Amino acid sequence: MRAAVFGAAGYGGIELVRLLQGHPEVELVYLADPAFEGKRVPEVFPHLTGSVELHFEAPSVPRAVECADVIFFCLHPGIAMDMVAEALDAGRVVLDFSADFRLKDRERYEAYYETHRQPALLSKAVYGLPELHRKALANTRLVAVPGCYPTSGTLALAPLVANGLVDTNCLVVNSASGVSGMGRKPSLPGHFPECNEDARAYGIGIHRHTPEMEQELGRLTSEPLKVLFVPHLIPVSRGIVTTAYAPLRRECTTADLLEAYREFYRGEPFVRVRGESESVSLKPIQGTNYCDVGVRADSRTGMAVALASLDNLGKGLSSAAVQCMNVCCGFDETAGLRQPAIWP
Amino acid sequence: MRAAVFGAAGYGGIELVRLLQGHPEVELVYLADPAFEGKRVPEVFPHLTGSVELHFEAPSVPRAVECADVIFFCLHPGIAMDMVAEALDAGRVVLDFSADFRLKDRERYEAYYETHRQPALLSKAVYGLPELHRKALANTRLVAVPGCYPTSGTLALAPLVANGLVDTNCLVVNSASGVSGMGRKPSLPGHFPECNEDARAYGIGIHRHTPEMEQELGRLTSEPLKVLFVPHLIPVSRGIVTTAYAPLRRECTTADLLEAYREFYRGEPFVRVRGESESVSLKPIQGTNYCDVGVRADSRTGMAVALASLDNLGKGLSSAAVQCMNVCCGFDETAGLRQPAIWP
Amino acid sequence: MRAAVFGAAGYGGIELVRLLQGHPEVELVYLADPAFEGKRVPEVFPHLTGSVELHFEAPSVPRAVECADVIFFCLHPGIAMDMVAEALDAGRVVLDFSADFRLKDRERYEAYYETHRQPALLSKAVYGLPELHRKALANTRLVAVPGCYPTSGTLALAPLVANGLVDTNCLVVNSASGVSGMGRKPSLPGHFPECNEDARAYGIGIHRHTPEMEQELGRLTSEPLKVLFVPHLIPVSRGIVTTAYAPLRRECTTADLLEAYREFYRGEPFVRVRGESESVSLKPIQGTNYCDVGVRADSRTGMAVALASLDNLGKGLSSAAVQCMNVCCGFDETAGLRQPAIWP
Amino acid sequence: MRAAVFGAAGYGGIELVRLLQGHPEVELVYLADPAFEGKRVPEVFPHLTGSVELHFEAPSVPRAVECADVIFFCLHPGIAMDMVAEALDAGRVVLDFSADFRLKDRERYEAYYETHRQPALLSKAVYGLPELHRKALANTRLVAVPGCYPTSGTLALAPLVANGLVDTNCLVVNSASGVSGMGRKPSLPGHFPECNEDARAYGIGIHRHTPEMEQELGRLTSEPLKVLFVPHLIPVSRGIVTTAYAPLRRECTTADLLEAYREFYRGEPFVRVRGESESVSLKPIQGTNYCDVGVRADSRTGMAVALASLDNLGKGLSSAAVQCMNVCCGFDETAGLRQPAIWP
Repeated sequence: MRAAVFGAAGYGGIELVRLLQGHPEVELVYLADPAFEGKRVPEVFPHLTGSVELHFEAPSVPRAVECADVIFFCLHPGIAMDMVAEALDAGRVVLDFSADFRLKDRERYEAYYETHRQPALLSKAVYGLPELHRKALANTRLVAVPGCYPTSGTLALAPLVANGLVDTNCLVVNSASGVSGMGRKPSLPGHFPECNEDARAYGIGIHRHTPEMEQELGRLTSEPLKVLFVPHLIPVSRGIVTTAYAPLRRECTTADLLEAYREFYRGEPFVRVRGESESVSLKPIQGTNYCDVGVRADSRTGMAVALASLDNLGKGLSSAAVQCMNVCCGFDETAGLRQPAIWP
Repeated sequence: MRAAVFGAAGYGGIELVRLLQGHPEVELVYLADPAFEGKRVPEVFPHLTGSVELHFEAPSVPRAVECADVIFFCLHPGIAMDMVAEALDAGRVVLDFSADFRLKDRERYEAYYETHRQPALLSKAVYGLPELHRKALANTRLVAVPGCYPTSGTLALAPLVANGLVDTNCLVVNSASGVSGMGRKPSLPGHFPECNEDARAYGIGIHRHTPEMEQELGRLTSEPLKVLFVPHLIPVSRGIVTTAYAPLRRECTTADLLEAYREFYRGEPFVRVRGESESVSLKPIQGTNYCDVGVRADSRTGMAVALASLDNLGKGLSSAAVQCMNVCCGFDETAGLRQPAIWP
Repeated sequence: MRAAVFGAAGYGGIELVRLLQGHPEVELVYLADPAFEGKRVPEVFPHLTGSVELHFEAPSVPRAVECADVIFFCLHPGIAMDMVAEALDAGRVVLDFSADFRLKDRERYEAYYETHRQPALLSKAVYGLPELHRKALANTRLVAVPGCYPTSGTLALAPLVANGLVDTNCLVVNSASGVSGMGRKPSLPGHFPECNEDARAYGIGIHRHTPEMEQELGRLTSEPLKVLFVPHLIPVSRGIVTTAYAPLRRECTTADLLEAYREFYRGEPFVRVRGESESVSLKPIQGTNYCDVGVRADSRTGMAVALASLDNLGKGLSSAAVQCMNVCCGFDETAGLRQPAIWP
Repeated sequence: MRAAVFGAAGYGGIELVRLLQGHPEVELVYLADPAFEGKRVPEVFPHLTGSVELHFEAPSVPRAVECADVIFFCLHPGIAMDMVAEALDAGRVVLDFSADFRLKDRERYEAYYETHRQPALLSKAVYGLPELHRKALANTRLVAVPGCYPTSGTLALAPLVANGLVDTNCLVVNSASGVSGMGRKPSLPGHFPECNEDARAYGIGIHRHTPEMEQELGRLTSEPLKVLFVPHLIPVSRGIVTTAYAPLRRECTTADLLEAYREFYRGEPFVRVRGESESVSLKPIQGTNYCDVGVRADSRTGMAVALASLDNLGKGLSSAAVQCMNVCCGFDETAGLRQPAIWP
C-alpha cells in the first residue's frame, strides 16, 4: 500500500516515516513539509541516510490523493481539518495526528481548541485506541490518533473504571513527559540548559488532553467521571510515565487488581501488564509501540495506584497510528511494530 | 564554633562540609569516614581543593567530643543511635541526619526501621523543620534532621492542612527525585545507563518517609490524616519536585489558597511562595536551602494541587541541618546559606 | 541457524540477543549468564518481554555445542579463551567479543592483558572488520570482534593511511564515549550523580585499545605507524564520537579527502561518508550498525581531521558481530541490521 | 563600588549578576536588557528571588555612567563597541564580554568578525587573563574578557609553550563544551531532544576563538605558533574540557611537565594543577572561577597531552570578569569568588 505523510518533518512525522520505511506492506510515496521542500530526507534527518531517499515536497492533497492509498496528517490542531475532508472525499484512508477528530463533542473541542470546520466528520472518526475500538477501527476510513497523555492515562485506568473498582468522581492522573512532547520547534522551555537538570508541573488541571481522557474513560462506566490531569516535564528525550490515583470502592489486594488488568488486556499485543514486583518505566518502551501498565492497591489509604509508561512518539503517537492503519487496512496488527526497545 | 562531621564522605556529609567551610561562625575541625581514613578531603572530592584541607579520620566520638562543640551524624538509620547518646552526654549539640530521632512514636519507627536502642531520647529530639518547630529548635541539643521527601511534602501541604482547607483522609503526595537521593554507593538502579533516559515510580505506598509526613502534617490538625506517598526516580542529579493532591473542603480559588500560603510562610527566609503564573521547579533551588512552594485550586474537580521543590541535599538535608544549627546555636538563621542557585 | 550466547546479560550480550531475536536466519537457542541462571530473560530485561522467552542458563560449552551452530562469547578478556577453543574443536562458528584474539602479536597481547593460553588460535582468528577483512571473514570459523574505540579510530583514519595522505608517525585519536562502554556492573565512575554533567579524559596514552588501532591501521601502510589514543567519558548512554588528527603529506582540500573516503568505502553497507557541510554525530547511529565518517583538510595548519561516530554497542560491538556472522555464514551481510536509528 | 550590567539577561549576564550580588565590595545598581525591560529580575530568573530585586531597564550608557563606577557589557561582538568608548570617555571602568577588544591585530579581528569601529581602543584594552596580564590589568580601565575556549586552551598549554617544551608549529586543541556556550536564545542545535544523547565536532579549524589562542600563546614564545582548534558540543549544561596535543621537543616525563606547571601557576588562586593520578573534569569547576589543569608526557609517541577544565560561564566568562574587576579595582583578587563547586 502506498502512503503519504503531511507534516513529515516534525517529531511525530519523522518517527512515522521511520516506521513506514520498515513496514512490510507499505511503500512511502509522498512526504510533505513546507519548511524543507525540495530537500532529501537524509539532509534533514541524517539517521535515515540509506533508508529513505525521498524528497520533502510542498503540501498538496491532490498530489497525495493521486499517488497514495493511505494519508497521514501529522499537523497541529486546526490546520488539516479541510485537507482531511478532501482526502476522505477522494476515498482515501486517513489517519490524523491532531486533536481535531478525537472529541466526539464539538463543544468540548471548541472549548479547548477552536471553531470546528468539519463537524460532520466527528461521528465518522474513530478514536485510535485498538484496545477500546478495534472493531470500529476495522470499519472506518478516518482515524483520530489519540494524544500521548490520554493513551497513557486511559490504558492505566481503563480496567479499574470498566470493572467498577474505583470511584470516578475525581481520577487524578499525574504524568511526566520527555521533552520531545513539545515538538521540534525550538523554544525556551525546551532549550537544553533550561530543561536539563530541571523538572516541573505545568498546565495544572487545564491541559487540553483532559477531555480526551474523560471521554474515553467515561465510555467505560455509566457513572459521572472526572479527571484531574497534571503533566510534568522531565529531562528525557522520549517517554511518558503516568501514575494515577483513585479511591477503591471496596477492599481488594494488588493481586486482585492485577488479575483484572490481565483479564482486560488479555490478547492485546502491545499492552504488557507488569507484576507486583516489577516497575513500569521508560526504558522498556522507548522507540516501540508498547504500553506497560501496572497497578497497586494501598490498603492503608484505600486507594488504587495505576501505572503506565509509553513512548510519546510511539504508542503515544506514531506507532499507534501504524497499529491503527494495520487494523484499518486488514494487515497483521503487529506488522512493522515488532522491534523491541534497545537497552540501555 | 567548632564542628565535627561523621559520615563526611557521603553525599549529605560532603555537602554539609561544603556549607560549613563557608559558614562565618563555624570552623571545621573533624571529619570522619572509615572508607577514606587518612586521605585528604580533596583527594576524594576534588571540588574542595583549595577550600578544605582536613583529612578524613577514623570515627571516634571521644575524639569528636574533645575537639568540637557541634557534631553532625550523617549516617544511615540505626548506625549512630548510641554515638548520638554519647555525644549528648558529653554536652555537645547534635544534629542527626538519619531517621532515628524523627518519629516520636517508637512503634512506628520500629515498624519501618528496627529496634530503637535509645528510646529515651525520642522525646528530647526536635524535628528539624524551623518552619514548624523554630522555638523548640532554639531550646534543644538534639535535632532530627528531616528526610528530603517529608520536607517537600510537609511544606507543600502544611498551609492547606493547618487552615482546614482540605480533607485529610488521604493526602496524595507524588514526588520525583534526582538520583543523588540514593546516596553515593554505586548500585544498578543508579548506574548511569540504567537510570538515564528513564523514569519510574518505586516504593509505592510503602516508602519509609510516609510516617514522617503523617506525623508532621498530623500535628497541624485534629482530624485523622493519612498520606499516600509515591516517589519516582528521574534522571537529574539533585532535586525533588512534589505534586500533592487533596480534596478541597469548600469552594475556593487559587488566589485564596495562595493567600493562605503567603500568610503561613510570611517571614520565612527559605520558603518562597510562587504565584499562579509561576512554576515550581528544580533549577531555582539546586544547591540552596530554598523550598519553593505553590498551589492551585481546580474548581472542575474540587481538588487542591500543592507544589513544592527543594534540593534533596539542600533544604532536604544538609543545608536544612545548617539552618537548624543556626537556630539552635543562636546564629543568624541565614548564616552561610544566602548563596542563590546558579543558572543554568 | 541456531545461536548460543555466553555472557548474555551484559550490555554487549543483551544487545546481541535483541538483534538475534529479530534476525531472519537465526534462532536463539541458548543464553548463558551465571548471575541470572534460571531467570527468564524478561525478568532481567523488561524491554524483551514479548520478544524473548528463553531462560538464562549456567554456562556450559558442551550444552552450547550440542544445541547451537554459532556461538558468541560476550565476556571480558581472558575468561573464555579455552571455551573458544573447545567450541571451535567441536566444529562451531565462534564470535568472541573479548580482546583475546584481536592482536596477532602474542607479546603485545600479553603486554596489555595477560598470558595467552591459546596462542595457536591467534593465526586462525580474523579481525571482525568486514570493511578490511571481508574475504578472510568469509573463510574462518573464529571471529575476533573488534573493540568499540578501535573500530571508530580505524574507520576514521583508514582512507588517509591507505592512500598515503598523512604522516603516520603519530596519529592522534581523541574519542568520547558514552557510559555503557563501562559495562553494566555498577561502579563509582558510572554512578549517575558522578558522571552526569561531567566529562573527562582517562587512560591517556595507555588505553588497551591502542595496539588494536596500530595493528589495523598499520596493515594499510608500509611505514612506521603509531597511535596516541585519548578516550573521554561523556554523559550519554550509548555512542562514541572520534576526532583524529594527522599531518597531511601534501596540500589537499577537504573535497580531495572526501573523494578518497567515498572511494575507500564505496559499496560498504554500513559506513556512511558525511559531506563537508554535514556533522558526524551520535544520534544518527545509536542502536544501529552504522559508522558515520567525515574528514576535513585544514590548510592553515596542514592537518587532516578525521571524524567517526558509531554506537559502542552497535558497530562497536554487538551489531558488528552480527555483520561478521552474516559474512561468515553466507547470509546477506545486512540481514537483521537494516533498522535505522530513532529520532530524537 | 556600584556596578552596571548591559546584556544582563543572557547566560553570561545573569551569572555575573549572581556573582556581583554576593560580592562584598559591589553594589548592583543598573541592569539593562531590552527583552525584559520593566520586569523584575526574579520574574525572569526565579533562582534570584530573594537575592536580587532590581528591574531590567532599557539600555542607556548615560544612565549607567550616571549611577555606576564599573560597567560590564555582556553582548555579542560588534554591538557594544561604541558604548564601550562612551563609557570609557566618561571615566568608567569597563569590562567587555565580547570579542571586540581581545585581538590586538585589527585585521585578524576583521577577518573573523566585522569592521572595527573603535580601533584606537585596541591598544588600551588588556586581555583579561590575570595569569598572563596581572600587572597590565591593574593599570587599565578597559578589560577584554577572554572567550571560554581560549582560556581553557591557553591555560592548558601556556607552561609548555612558555618553557619551550613543545613544537608550536601546530598545537591541536580539542575541546568539548556544554550547551550553555550557545547562549540562551533557543535554536535547533540547542533543543533538548536534538542535543541530548548526542555529541559532535563543529566549526572544525575555523572557529573564531582560534586567533585568540594563537595571540595569547604566541606571546609566550618567539617561534611561529599555530593552533588547530576543534570544539565539540556535549550534553551538559555548563563546562568545557580541553585536551591539547603537542610534540615534545625533548624526552621528558609527566613528572617533569607537572613540575613546570606547578612552577608556572605557583600562587595562582584559581588555577589548580592536578597530579598524574588525578582527573581533570567538569564537576570540580562548575559554578566556580577555577580552571583545573593537568599534563601527561607520552613517551611512546613523544607527545605532550595538556588538559584543562573550566566553567564556560565561570572562569570562561563571568567569574573571570569579576576576577579582572578585582585586580583592576584593587580588591582582594578572590573577593566574591571563593565558593567551591557543589557535589554531585
